[in-house]
Amino acid sequence: MIPRYSRPAMTAIWSPESRFRIWFEIEAHATTALAEIGVVPKAAADKVWEMGRDATFDVARIDSIEAVTKHDVIAFLTHLAEIVGPEARFVHQGMTSSDVLDTCLNVQLVRAADILIADVDALLDALKHRAQEHKMTPTIGRSHGIHAEPVTFGLKLAQAYAEFSRNRARLVAAREEIATCAISGAVGTFANIDPRVEEYVARKMGLSPEPVSTQVIPRDRHAMFFATLGIVASSLERLAIEIRHLQRTEVLEAEEYFSEGQKGSSAMPHKRNPVLTENITGLARMVRSYALPAMENVALWHERDISHSSVERMIGPDATVTLDFALARMTGVIEKLLVYPANMQRNLDRLGGLVHSQRVLLALTQAGVSREDAYRLVQRNAMPVWRGEGDFLTLLKADTEVTKALTPEQIEECFDLGYHFKHVDTIFARVFGRA
Amino acid sequence: MIPRYSRPAMTAIWSPESRFRIWFEIEAHATTALAEIGVVPKAAADKVWEMGRDATFDVARIDSIEAVTKHDVIAFLTHLAEIVGPEARFVHQGMTSSDVLDTCLNVQLVRAADILIADVDALLDALKHRAQEHKMTPTIGRSHGIHAEPVTFGLKLAQAYAEFSRNRARLVAAREEIATCAISGAVGTFANIDPRVEEYVARKMGLSPEPVSTQVIPRDRHAMFFATLGIVASSLERLAIEIRHLQRTEVLEAEEYFSEGQKGSSAMPHKRNPVLTENITGLARMVRSYALPAMENVALWHERDISHSSVERMIGPDATVTLDFALARMTGVIEKLLVYPANMQRNLDRLGGLVHSQRVLLALTQAGVSREDAYRLVQRNAMPVWRGEGDFLTLLKADTEVTKALTPEQIEECFDLGYHFKHVDTIFARVFGRA
Amino acid sequence: MIPRYSRPAMTAIWSPESRFRIWFEIEAHATTALAEIGVVPKAAADKVWEMGRDATFDVARIDSIEAVTKHDVIAFLTHLAEIVGPEARFVHQGMTSSDVLDTCLNVQLVRAADILIADVDALLDALKHRAQEHKMTPTIGRSHGIHAEPVTFGLKLAQAYAEFSRNRARLVAAREEIATCAISGAVGTFANIDPRVEEYVARKMGLSPEPVSTQVIPRDRHAMFFATLGIVASSLERLAIEIRHLQRTEVLEAEEYFSEGQKGSSAMPHKRNPVLTENITGLARMVRSYALPAMENVALWHERDISHSSVERMIGPDATVTLDFALARMTGVIEKLLVYPANMQRNLDRLGGLVHSQRVLLALTQAGVSREDAYRLVQRNAMPVWRGEGDFLTLLKADTEVTKALTPEQIEECFDLGYHFKHVDTIFARVFGRA
Amino acid sequence: MIPRYSRPAMTAIWSPESRFRIWFEIEAHATTALAEIGVVPKAAADKVWEMGRDATFDVARIDSIEAVTKHDVIAFLTHLAEIVGPEARFVHQGMTSSDVLDTCLNVQLVRAADILIADVDALLDALKHRAQEHKMTPTIGRSHGIHAEPVTFGLKLAQAYAEFSRNRARLVAAREEIATCAISGAVGTFANIDPRVEEYVARKMGLSPEPVSTQVIPRDRHAMFFATLGIVASSLERLAIEIRHLQRTEVLEAEEYFSEGQKGSSAMPHKRNPVLTENITGLARMVRSYALPAMENVALWHERDISHSSVERMIGPDATVTLDFALARMTGVIEKLLVYPANMQRNLDRLGGLVHSQRVLLALTQAGVSREDAYRLVQRNAMPVWRGEGDFLTLLKADTEVTKALTPEQIEECFDLGYHFKHVDTIFARVFGRA
Repeated sequence: MIPRYSRPAMTAIWSPESRFRIWFEIEAHATTALAEIGVVPKAAADKVWEMGRDATFDVARIDSIEAVTKHDVIAFLTHLAEIVGPEARFVHQGMTSSDVLDTCLNVQLVRAADILIADVDALLDALKHRAQEHKMTPTIGRSHGIHAEPVTFGLKLAQAYAEFSRNRARLVAAREEIATCAISGAVGTFANIDPRVEEYVARKMGLSPEPVSTQVIPRDRHAMFFATLGIVASSLERLAIEIRHLQRTEVLEAEEYFSEGQKGSSAMPHKRNPVLTENITGLARMVRSYALPAMENVALWHERDISHSSVERMIGPDATVTLDFALARMTGVIEKLLVYPANMQRNLDRLGGLVHSQRVLLALTQAGVSREDAYRLVQRNAMPVWRGEGDFLTLLKADTEVTKALTPEQIEECFDLGYHFKHVDTIFARVFGRA
Repeated sequence: MIPRYSRPAMTAIWSPESRFRIWFEIEAHATTALAEIGVVPKAAADKVWEMGRDATFDVARIDSIEAVTKHDVIAFLTHLAEIVGPEARFVHQGMTSSDVLDTCLNVQLVRAADILIADVDALLDALKHRAQEHKMTPTIGRSHGIHAEPVTFGLKLAQAYAEFSRNRARLVAAREEIATCAISGAVGTFANIDPRVEEYVARKMGLSPEPVSTQVIPRDRHAMFFATLGIVASSLERLAIEIRHLQRTEVLEAEEYFSEGQKGSSAMPHKRNPVLTENITGLARMVRSYALPAMENVALWHERDISHSSVERMIGPDATVTLDFALARMTGVIEKLLVYPANMQRNLDRLGGLVHSQRVLLALTQAGVSREDAYRLVQRNAMPVWRGEGDFLTLLKADTEVTKALTPEQIEECFDLGYHFKHVDTIFARVFGRA
Repeated sequence: MIPRYSRPAMTAIWSPESRFRIWFEIEAHATTALAEIGVVPKAAADKVWEMGRDATFDVARIDSIEAVTKHDVIAFLTHLAEIVGPEARFVHQGMTSSDVLDTCLNVQLVRAADILIADVDALLDALKHRAQEHKMTPTIGRSHGIHAEPVTFGLKLAQAYAEFSRNRARLVAAREEIATCAISGAVGTFANIDPRVEEYVARKMGLSPEPVSTQVIPRDRHAMFFATLGIVASSLERLAIEIRHLQRTEVLEAEEYFSEGQKGSSAMPHKRNPVLTENITGLARMVRSYALPAMENVALWHERDISHSSVERMIGPDATVTLDFALARMTGVIEKLLVYPANMQRNLDRLGGLVHSQRVLLALTQAGVSREDAYRLVQRNAMPVWRGEGDFLTLLKADTEVTKALTPEQIEECFDLGYHFKHVDTIFARVFGRA
Repeated sequence: MIPRYSRPAMTAIWSPESRFRIWFEIEAHATTALAEIGVVPKAAADKVWEMGRDATFDVARIDSIEAVTKHDVIAFLTHLAEIVGPEARFVHQGMTSSDVLDTCLNVQLVRAADILIADVDALLDALKHRAQEHKMTPTIGRSHGIHAEPVTFGLKLAQAYAEFSRNRARLVAAREEIATCAISGAVGTFANIDPRVEEYVARKMGLSPEPVSTQVIPRDRHAMFFATLGIVASSLERLAIEIRHLQRTEVLEAEEYFSEGQKGSSAMPHKRNPVLTENITGLARMVRSYALPAMENVALWHERDISHSSVERMIGPDATVTLDFALARMTGVIEKLLVYPANMQRNLDRLGGLVHSQRVLLALTQAGVSREDAYRLVQRNAMPVWRGEGDFLTLLKADTEVTKALTPEQIEECFDLGYHFKHVDTIFARVFGRA
């Protein structure tokens, strides 16, 4: 997480201030619950809320206590006692530090997930808008980087829309994975705290109780969360690479928006480089890489060890902040993408009609030519075109073995671009629903 | 995927014979669908089924054709024509190789997922059985590898049960991710094939149609699938490491079953090593590692490139076969695990009562002592015990500052082991449901 | 490791036959060394060599013994005793299984490294040959996929040559890392075996003694080995992606060789797809992924645990066989690469001279124009060219602010292509040495 | 990189101030070199040094320029012109931004490597000191977590010393990998800048010229650098896990130093947790994970794309700062490690002599018993001991089949602990050299 690739709302989730605020809420809700079941005085719980609700927790003060105690939650509780007064002794009764830490982490991840889901929604909006705008803009479909058959630019964006719809569903599932709360004490047995406290705090914090915690909330949940972020990042990479390809000098079918005053290169002022999508490509590598330490975090020793903690202090912010930034950047790229239909048409026309060879092949077989013969006929007319020695349509019409099977009109029909787009509506309906 | 770590049912999914059989079914169903909408003769479709239904596809023959054509699907279709006769020219009409390859891969992954889900079910059964058997077997809970407070051995297994229940749900979701079918032609536009063919084949093969395919089914689906396998593997690693810890010479609370005739070591015949769970630990590393190339496969160029193919030829079998083997091995380990309650009790007693310190701390604060003072009192009696200079209960009773707050009976109550287990029922009900 | 992506020499290293042969050599050399220091009878050592030197070890027989003992080395020794007779009891004296297994693995990795180094040498030869052939073939240099300034195709290949020269040196270092031998007994103390035996076996097997082994040879060595393979694979990916880019329809500056009879696509017979380099791209992902479990293998417990073993049974063959195949495939691609200088020139000319803008910028500043002004002048003439509204040279000559600083001749000089290649010799000399 | 896990010297390398200072040095040295070969006025170069040598570069000012130009090097050069005056137009002549950026990154990585090498040296010192202190402290060697045969605690540390000696050599090689400089212009052809400038700047910055750069320095170098850091981290993990094991309650052979005032747990005041080594375990996961995006960075498009940049802005600091912190933390752990020889002896004695079974086995075979029989004899006496039904020595002496082969004295000799340590000197000499 570095400022250059951060946005404030996501960054704020991970500030010490946010963390201490969440800690306070967990502790205060737990104290209220303890009061409700008669373990601590109701007045004490009220006092905690009264003094703490609008308090500012002094990060520097807490840090200085932690420097001595080497224990962050004790440092916080010590500071809380300074704010609340003697009633503070009823706070944290029967709880263990991880009850606070793990529940807090999950609150932060839930909030991060909410932002990421909103980010994907914004990206989906942009994709849908541009997909509909270019629903029928012809462009060449490419496999292996080689011209294949025509598609529309809208179809490319519809594919991305479908992919990010899946990513949205995955993020919702990932959010669910980590939306749990543990207030279960030293080794998760509720020895010193009633399970009703956990249920109460969970409800208040928008979480559900963790069925079995063992001081910690099990890390398979978090691994699934971060792996999901890695998948979303991989989809971003796919879209980024598509745009980078389209912006290549020789292709130039689309371009990232280039703002006034922006300089592409100190050396080559004419250059307009796809730096945003290249940047997203790199960010995707980072987000993906965080899935691994998250998976290695699962196998904690016995009821817990603390090896996961340093990992999460790093990837918690790093993965969510970076993915948030990359999603937002991609949304901007899509919204403002410069699309060049004329260039798309020029590229489409480039191969002298060879992109229709599959259709010719099919027409030949449907006219009774064997698959092997049809293939041979198409290939012998295609190769000269490929070498720049003629136009596919003309050559086919001049090939007597071809004209034995197909009339000139039938051959010409194979070169009708619109033919390829007759099911675009079907696909759009699958993706966006019927209008 | 190596024989040593393979089981036959999963391995069979990936055999050439299975693959060609699935290819045949896809092609034959597609031909039937084409016949139903009048594109090819009904009789041709019938002939394909008639000749192919019980045919044995000659792997060596197909390989030898591929050696010339360097194209696997063409090689198969050529061989199919040898079996079916001239009607074979109606097969594969308007389709592209990837329609067959990608749909086949998903069929294989779905079948693999079904086996993995069954594997997890078997493991869940074993965990549940052993959890109930040891529901109230006391053992020490450990954080950081250090004795914390008592838990039961059943709770440890209930945690694993809850974790693998989540993994089951994740596998079901992962299966859903890749249960799609594409019969959409060269670049996914259905230019030469009606979308109804895809719908028909999907239904027959137990899949749903891919909303937008682009010659290939998008690889974010597969990435999610393999990432999920990595999570399941990480959970296996956690359970494996737990057992390895429990089998340590100094701990010896449980042991892998040791069969007659088995030799632990050529050099140290008394040794009984947790080799199965160590093996699972290594296998987990492998399954986890496959998530990465799967994620890198997402960003194919434009409508497709074929870089994903070599990756999937390797990790398709490797990840599913290895995880299947590891899950089955773990189920055997759990079913036959030798559990030593007496050793658990011995370890529990090892610290002279220090594991009850948290309870004493709580009793002191509940009796009105400040948190700081209570901490100090517990600590000054705990440290001598830790150094082997006395018993915690005796020392506390002799500490006048302690006895000012608590009666001897109140102190003794803090040492009641059963106290810790009063919510085991609650937790079991959360995990296994009310009896 | 799958047959499709395997070559026989590398595969043979990992066969059971090779493994048992190496085991025999280790055991027999150790017995000879034991005889030399008087621990076992000289005659026994001679007998071992006599009976075993040309023996065929029966893999099926050893497997069937292992099925009972569940221990591979004991199974082998049992079978060896069947071959050697009673003198076999002097074999393996004071040794532990890992002495055999770990030393054998390193012998296999050393042999694999030798093949990989030879593979890189072959690739270097191909790169050098083609680099010299195209030393002065002009082509456009691209940054961000956008035309930048002219380079030569030979320079591209020289870069690859330099990169693979580094990879060769890394492989030599990686080979050195794992070229060690351990014959140090149960926990590496030489309690029951003299260190001279290790020295003898090491020398005979072409290894050096491991300074401190602890039953096992430390796995940081293997991690470094496999990480190095991951780097080599990443360089292959870079070169593969370069070729895939050059073969794009719109670029078509180079093409993979396309053999007679090969079919690019069942649907589009004109297509010639860069399937070899796409395949290498995927294989690179796999080889890279193996670095991770290798790194996770380092942290074995205490003197050893066996979690590394399953990982190495998989990645030992998988990583080396796959990289060997990918290197050899790339060598073939480079040797037979179809290079199209005319297309390179056509692409170079595509931007109406804009690729010379940097030189114009420099000429302006050298003529006393400020950097900011020069940038502005170049930019205002470049933008119309970019939009297809004129030729850069013509526009510059017509810009009076430009011509105030530069004469027409000075402007024309900026468009001299040869100017860019004056240091090609320098770079070639750095890479290939002076002629 | 987060403050909690950072040390100031390493962090300073990555500050904007350091970066701009290095940029200045590169630009100023290049200007001097240009002056020496007569391309720019000598006075201009002098002015650059005069004004810039002690200048403070205004980070906020540069940021605000970059906000408009969206180009960091142009922003810096603009600010530099504000400092230097009109002579600034001679700066950066014929160079491209990457000449500055890439050379700067390598300077930073070289400085980081120097700190890491010094860190490893400090760790080696600590390991050597403690290894010699405990050269002859007996402790049990464990394989699979199970008692094997005796080793000394010094041997464990000597192993770590040998491993980190290798890591030191790897870091030196990794430093060499990235100690290169590129001043080669837009696409690396030196079209507008003489190669002598690169040679001059390289020499002044302590680097060597990159043989072929292509605007960027090739990223296989950086991949190797970060992969090496991942290996070092994996070794740290191994040592951390060893200490965590030794500190387990049931083992307690060593303990992290526990400072006054430190609180292990808010709930269990007696607990002394190995939190430093657990923390290092987590940090190792992070450093290891950075190797992957570094490897993915290798395959830049053509002469360069900028996808590597965001990755390096993150992992450059993250990997080096985290590893520096982890190494230093480990050095502190080793220096102050509390070692408990009495507990080691107690654990050694725990198995009633079974750890000597291998020696008994050997004595039996040397006395003429067949390997199979000897194994059986040892096993039948070992199993009762394992079940707590007797002492190994006593049982062996009472086994008539054993006493047929060995005298009581010979049996007793097998139980001599010192026997295992006779080659400790040999091993220490291998690792630390002869005294």
